[in-house]
Amino acid sequence: MTATRTETDSLGTIEIPADRYWGPQTERARALFRIGDARLDPGVIRATGLQKWASAEANRRLGELPEAIAEPIKAAAAEVESGARDADFPLPVWQTGSGTQTNMNANEVISNRANEMLGQKLGSRKPVHPNDHVNRGQSSNDSFPTVMHLAAVHAVRHRLLPGLTALHAALTAKAAEYAGIVKLGRTHLMDAVPVTLGGEFATWARQVENGIARVADTIPRLLLLPQGGTAAGTGLNRHPDFDDAFCAIVAERTGEAFAPNPDKSEGMAAHDAFVELHGALNTVAVSLTKVANDIRLLGSGPRAGIGELVIPADGLSSSIMPGKTNPTQSEALTMVAARVMGNHTTVTFAGSQGHLELNVFKPVIIQAVLESTTLLGDAARSFATHMVAKLEPNRARIADQVAKSLMLVTALNPRIGYDKAVQIAKLALAEDLTLKDAAARLGHVAPEDFDRWVRPEDMLRPGGTLEGGG
Amino acid sequence: MTATRTETDSLGTIEIPADRYWGPQTERARALFRIGDARLDPGVIRATGLQKWASAEANRRLGELPEAIAEPIKAAAAEVESGARDADFPLPVWQTGSGTQTNMNANEVISNRANEMLGQKLGSRKPVHPNDHVNRGQSSNDSFPTVMHLAAVHAVRHRLLPGLTALHAALTAKAAEYAGIVKLGRTHLMDAVPVTLGGEFATWARQVENGIARVADTIPRLLLLPQGGTAAGTGLNRHPDFDDAFCAIVAERTGEAFAPNPDKSEGMAAHDAFVELHGALNTVAVSLTKVANDIRLLGSGPRAGIGELVIPADGLSSSIMPGKTNPTQSEALTMVAARVMGNHTTVTFAGSQGHLELNVFKPVIIQAVLESTTLLGDAARSFATHMVAKLEPNRARIADQVAKSLMLVTALNPRIGYDKAVQIAKLALAEDLTLKDAAARLGHVAPEDFDRWVRPEDMLRPGGTLEGGG
Amino acid sequence: MTATRTETDSLGTIEIPADRYWGPQTERARALFRIGDARLDPGVIRATGLQKWASAEANRRLGELPEAIAEPIKAAAAEVESGARDADFPLPVWQTGSGTQTNMNANEVISNRANEMLGQKLGSRKPVHPNDHVNRGQSSNDSFPTVMHLAAVHAVRHRLLPGLTALHAALTAKAAEYAGIVKLGRTHLMDAVPVTLGGEFATWARQVENGIARVADTIPRLLLLPQGGTAAGTGLNRHPDFDDAFCAIVAERTGEAFAPNPDKSEGMAAHDAFVELHGALNTVAVSLTKVANDIRLLGSGPRAGIGELVIPADGLSSSIMPGKTNPTQSEALTMVAARVMGNHTTVTFAGSQGHLELNVFKPVIIQAVLESTTLLGDAARSFATHMVAKLEPNRARIADQVAKSLMLVTALNPRIGYDKAVQIAKLALAEDLTLKDAAARLGHVAPEDFDRWVRPEDMLRPGGTLEGGG
Amino acid sequence: MTATRTETDSLGTIEIPADRYWGPQTERARALFRIGDARLDPGVIRATGLQKWASAEANRRLGELPEAIAEPIKAAAAEVESGARDADFPLPVWQTGSGTQTNMNANEVISNRANEMLGQKLGSRKPVHPNDHVNRGQSSNDSFPTVMHLAAVHAVRHRLLPGLTALHAALTAKAAEYAGIVKLGRTHLMDAVPVTLGGEFATWARQVENGIARVADTIPRLLLLPQGGTAAGTGLNRHPDFDDAFCAIVAERTGEAFAPNPDKSEGMAAHDAFVELHGALNTVAVSLTKVANDIRLLGSGPRAGIGELVIPADGLSSSIMPGKTNPTQSEALTMVAARVMGNHTTVTFAGSQGHLELNVFKPVIIQAVLESTTLLGDAARSFATHMVAKLEPNRARIADQVAKSLMLVTALNPRIGYDKAVQIAKLALAEDLTLKDAAARLGHVAPEDFDRWVRPEDMLRPGGTLEGGG
Repeated sequence: MTATRTETDSLGTIEIPADRYWGPQTERARALFRIGDARLDPGVIRATGLQKWASAEANRRLGELPEAIAEPIKAAAAEVESGARDADFPLPVWQTGSGTQTNMNANEVISNRANEMLGQKLGSRKPVHPNDHVNRGQSSNDSFPTVMHLAAVHAVRHRLLPGLTALHAALTAKAAEYAGIVKLGRTHLMDAVPVTLGGEFATWARQVENGIARVADTIPRLLLLPQGGTAAGTGLNRHPDFDDAFCAIVAERTGEAFAPNPDKSEGMAAHDAFVELHGALNTVAVSLTKVANDIRLLGSGPRAGIGELVIPADGLSSSIMPGKTNPTQSEALTMVAARVMGNHTTVTFAGSQGHLELNVFKPVIIQAVLESTTLLGDAARSFATHMVAKLEPNRARIADQVAKSLMLVTALNPRIGYDKAVQIAKLALAEDLTLKDAAARLGHVAPEDFDRWVRPEDMLRPGGTLEGGG
Repeated sequence: MTATRTETDSLGTIEIPADRYWGPQTERARALFRIGDARLDPGVIRATGLQKWASAEANRRLGELPEAIAEPIKAAAAEVESGARDADFPLPVWQTGSGTQTNMNANEVISNRANEMLGQKLGSRKPVHPNDHVNRGQSSNDSFPTVMHLAAVHAVRHRLLPGLTALHAALTAKAAEYAGIVKLGRTHLMDAVPVTLGGEFATWARQVENGIARVADTIPRLLLLPQGGTAAGTGLNRHPDFDDAFCAIVAERTGEAFAPNPDKSEGMAAHDAFVELHGALNTVAVSLTKVANDIRLLGSGPRAGIGELVIPADGLSSSIMPGKTNPTQSEALTMVAARVMGNHTTVTFAGSQGHLELNVFKPVIIQAVLESTTLLGDAARSFATHMVAKLEPNRARIADQVAKSLMLVTALNPRIGYDKAVQIAKLALAEDLTLKDAAARLGHVAPEDFDRWVRPEDMLRPGGTLEGGG
Repeated sequence: MTATRTETDSLGTIEIPADRYWGPQTERARALFRIGDARLDPGVIRATGLQKWASAEANRRLGELPEAIAEPIKAAAAEVESGARDADFPLPVWQTGSGTQTNMNANEVISNRANEMLGQKLGSRKPVHPNDHVNRGQSSNDSFPTVMHLAAVHAVRHRLLPGLTALHAALTAKAAEYAGIVKLGRTHLMDAVPVTLGGEFATWARQVENGIARVADTIPRLLLLPQGGTAAGTGLNRHPDFDDAFCAIVAERTGEAFAPNPDKSEGMAAHDAFVELHGALNTVAVSLTKVANDIRLLGSGPRAGIGELVIPADGLSSSIMPGKTNPTQSEALTMVAARVMGNHTTVTFAGSQGHLELNVFKPVIIQAVLESTTLLGDAARSFATHMVAKLEPNRARIADQVAKSLMLVTALNPRIGYDKAVQIAKLALAEDLTLKDAAARLGHVAPEDFDRWVRPEDMLRPGGTLEGGG
Repeated sequence: MTATRTETDSLGTIEIPADRYWGPQTERARALFRIGDARLDPGVIRATGLQKWASAEANRRLGELPEAIAEPIKAAAAEVESGARDADFPLPVWQTGSGTQTNMNANEVISNRANEMLGQKLGSRKPVHPNDHVNRGQSSNDSFPTVMHLAAVHAVRHRLLPGLTALHAALTAKAAEYAGIVKLGRTHLMDAVPVTLGGEFATWARQVENGIARVADTIPRLLLLPQGGTAAGTGLNRHPDFDDAFCAIVAERTGEAFAPNPDKSEGMAAHDAFVELHGALNTVAVSLTKVANDIRLLGSGPRAGIGELVIPADGLSSSIMPGKTNPTQSEALTMVAARVMGNHTTVTFAGSQGHLELNVFKPVIIQAVLESTTLLGDAARSFATHMVAKLEPNRARIADQVAKSLMLVTALNPRIGYDKAVQIAKLALAEDLTLKDAAARLGHVAPEDFDRWVRPEDMLRPGGTLEGGG
């Protein structure tokens, strides 16, 4: 049996675990939403701390809260912001779609903690009142979506972009290192004309670089906060300057250029900015799927696959096949991508389902956004560190595959025309000849011409096969 | 300038192309829904012909329509059912979400054509009236979803299942043909222990067989028709026996066991049966993606890939690389799968958005269902004919890859334990040795024991490596 | 600083927290997969306990493990199955796509715990060896997917279906209770003809009933286990009867009719059975979205919406609008549905991406399946208890809306024809008249006929408007 | 029987319909890809005309093609670009994933038509050769993705953005017109505090405005063309300046700032730019779903719904309910949105599945992108014209709903505190009182204070309830 205290609010009395800072609204919600086993993402909780801190400070500056009320609120809110009160936020994602219960959870925890700092007992509701003071000039309807923006920008900046940047750096380093390795290209998964191994890494790096730019492009609309819209977007019951003051304070505290949404209802009734952000995350997931798949393809084997790259031995073993090395980081990364694509469906559906003045899919949207952001950032870093940085080329195998490829015949197009080149390739394949032998047997190219005209290193750039040799 | 005739209905007069059978409602809808360039799937139009034919016949049997009205309606409806009137259904998917305009289009075309058969001019609206006679005892709200069920069952039975069955047969034939070819298995895309090529085809065949069963499992709920619900599911304004009579007639005409939905509103207000069906189609798309991908992987090369299968030369050429053969059927099939997965998102979203007595996403649901059904059936048949049936194994390459694989070491686990087997595999990889040489060098297995214990053909069944040899 | 012990395996030595049961493979994986903040679902861990218990018992019965090794393994595995060892499974979803690290985690925890029971120190690796004994006759490649099946069937049976059944019961009870309440139907969200409130609940109940059947239809294919396929589906290195013995044991222990998959590779290389299951979950999500949306629509208001249902006052309050009651359970349920739809995209993508002998998206697939199963079950139960059971009709409002609806005019179709009925409805709307007055003014229906012909209670069944009255 | 001519290419002879311009590759592809009933989007065909025109001109400028060859190619290509040759492009989407058959189709049609202009017979393959001249310096691998970019930018600029701009204008006009109409806001679909009708339109307009910006933000990466990459991104067999010349020519011809992709392989091996674009389209679909849903909610009724807006009578009728008006344009638009969301899943999956030097889901990607672009543009315009512009407010009903709402009590928070306000609202609801009467009965607010403090028009802006009145 947990010891409890009795609290009373406008809706009656209720028993609350004695050692917890939450209050009646949170306790009621715990009983009403026993759905799943997970809590709302801590990133949301901590952003709630920032939002309440900035609200108290804004109200203080505007004369809406006396110093004696505002300062304890700020002190308690800072604890929430730091993560120190995570355990006092017991609610799941699956609550009211406005996030009201989490907003009230914050109001209750902060007022209780503030009152405690002021020497009052938990549940006293004074001098700091959860609604009249902590929630001053606010509604869940503007506060919770503001928290969503704060949490998302934080996760993008501090977890996603660093991870992508690390991956970009790792790929770019390999691109330079392997710029001189000529290898066979593959189109339709079939042997094609030569490329360089460095060029392949450069293309993957380019995809990641574009991904970073795509995510960055969505930030401007994420910086527009609906705080100040209060109940229905109009700003009822708050100070006329509250929105400007609030945004200035969070901008200062975070270093991000947050500003009031010019149409606050747009940020409350809809969450298009998150659908847009997740569209960029989805594109990143698509790019990383390509990169991870390509690397495991090139590393397939070691003896009976493509085998151009040697995958790092990571110390993880097959439970039955001794000595087997697997592309485990590609697998983790592509599973993350699968999750992100799924989250995109969730965010798309949820984003479309707002009604009139309020979208009530807020918690599931921010949960999915934070999960995608975090997973992509972490997995990109992990892939950079444990896979890309440790890859090695199998130079002998690479050279052998170039030498025997039939698609070198393409270099002859400008010399003998496409139709004769087809004949050479077909004969070589059918009778297992070299291209040179097939060309000679057909009388299309003399061996000495073949050696001058068909040189993989000349096939790597525009015009290389059009010049010289002739 | 197209010649027109003037028609009048309860909403006023309107000009209609003189040579077309449609009427005012259709003409108004043409002007109001200029969205996209495609018309509603002809499968819907033809099922509308069946639905109107059966309604007229049911009303005739029940005394709701005199023979002199019912028979011309049936004659005209049969033309629609046959496809002969497709050109008189000009409307797009993007219309009213109840499909009302297409239902009215059918009412108008059939009444005009029936009246014409009876010697009247187009637009006369008598003796056969589009609402009072052709639509007798019906509403768009029950007729259009009934049409959806009729069209979907037809496409599943006549286009999807035959295609899947053909693919299953082609895969099964190859499974038998190649049952004796021992080849290297691959897990994580890396070399693993031996399997048979026939076994791989058998697994693909099993996936297709399961897919056929999955689709078949959804048919019972598709056979329940909402016809008779009229406006809101209650059956207002129709004969009490109309639903039973209607279902008996369509069952007789199609050979399918159609029956009245016991809760007609369930088939009008929601379309869960189509979401369920599409869930099966989605699973089939997933299965076929795996099959098509595996085959192109095994066919990759021909010289610098896995190269175990020889992909058929289909006469299609690269526009630049002479003599290149590509797995074009795998590509067509996986593109179809990508489309089906997208259609599944569409059907899921659309299916969830019904309000109270009516789901108003009917046209987009049936369009997606028919597209998926048709494409999967056609692509499966095309893949069976142009890819699977023409595949050939490259036996020399297959044998070579088995011989050199390091994972044959797994056969030693029961003899020397997992840890020593690891040492052998690692030494062989590091110094490019055969397993036999590495085993001997480490002193773990004598060469003559190696030859008895490590035999790919013994690794293909349970217990094979536990017996004999010892 | 946590105290550690040093362990050695075939890949070297490593430090492990001294008080944890896991071993070197788990510890290496912890360092390699620092992705996200969540662990693999406990449902998977516990099913791993069952899988290892049954494997040890099967090997014991078949003489593959001596009693002295098998029994401690079983004792330790039972602890894992019970949930008592959850804390010893620290790995995230985002690991190797075969689930190998979690399988090895189980092998290590069970061997360490078994050895401890036998008086050995952690890390001794004897007498019970993680690979040679705990993993005896198994591979991660068959064990982990078997665990997936065990966990999914458990969650479906014990968490999903009970929740859906509770919701079905609550809806059915209301259907009976409100069978006599005549109310306005709505199609296209617009006023339509009368239905009953009980009928609406009956339709929702029917959707849930169908959903239960859909989920149940997928269980047969979930009961087919790949255990026994070992590394690549062939059964290498296991006893010939291991698969049958294993399935008999888990069937006995769970009461579910588990049996060997006739093509074990099908259950390892692909996971179509989970894509199929999730297709059913997706359909349930679609159905429940409709139910939750309809109920909040009917409960909208209380004064300026539809207002036919009174939503329960749940003690949760708006943070700014005093006394406001919101449909919080509808919101939680539809957010769950949004998540399930997203999980469906994840499972679809992941299911399609297997290569040759192995699908390596196993952890993300089972995580999504278990989340969807759990959330739908819990949310359905919560919605039944806290929403459906507590709904009340607003009878006065319902009656008033029926009385004033213009769509009662539909009852006149069989009497005066569709075109005259249109005139009446239009006049009534334009001049804000009752239908009766409009009909009289137009001279289409005498007031006394109107009263006999237009009776909402006659509009609720087929033929009701065709009979009597005349 | 269609008359045919016999053609020969490097792969043999084949019969081709005598009156068609296509050649052997197209004819073979027709037989091999009998999948579905639809052809590739004409937007792709016409962009192919542009791509071939510009290629011929670039080669001419660079001396790679003589005038006598280049000019007839350009003349024939211009016909393709104009749409005049649509009928000569018979292939479906479901072909090779590189679009090779459509590229060859263009090469064949243009060379045949050019040769015809030069007085040769169809099939003569000279003087203009399909590969050596029309495809000069190109591969399908760079040409087809270039065509994708050209077609997408055209559709975005000429079909999507004009439609969205029209919708934005219509919504903005209504926002201004209805700025003075005070109405009840709704959150959680429940009665909330007052807003203005104009404000609701302004928020919808803002969503559309943001959508336009989101789409525009993706154009820069769409303007980067892979043309010049030829077979594998390296530029093999083309003139070194071909890419620059080509881009300059298409930029001039289209007025769009097309430029060479700095990493051409990025635009061939991956199609992230289309995934990104479709992410923006998906966001637009989400926004428009909200707008269309809100408008049909406000228009619900006319008598037993919310009924604040009067939906235009569009002349379309229910087939059974006389005089019923439905929000048909909302339905068409939300069905389009459902399709776009599905296309997004298709593009996401297809975009992720590239292998090494080539993504082979090109046709399905561009088909989906063009469909989404076209449908959104058309449906937005249709919605603007036939719905938004014709909406009318029901002023009497709007005023009545404001007057009776309980949520006006929120204005009392700053005066009497949240807890007393709750008591007033609850009493009014329970006993069906006005707020004023309830406030007086509880003794919390005198009637004369109530009238000064609770004024809807003061609740529409920040501070309005904090000032005056006191």
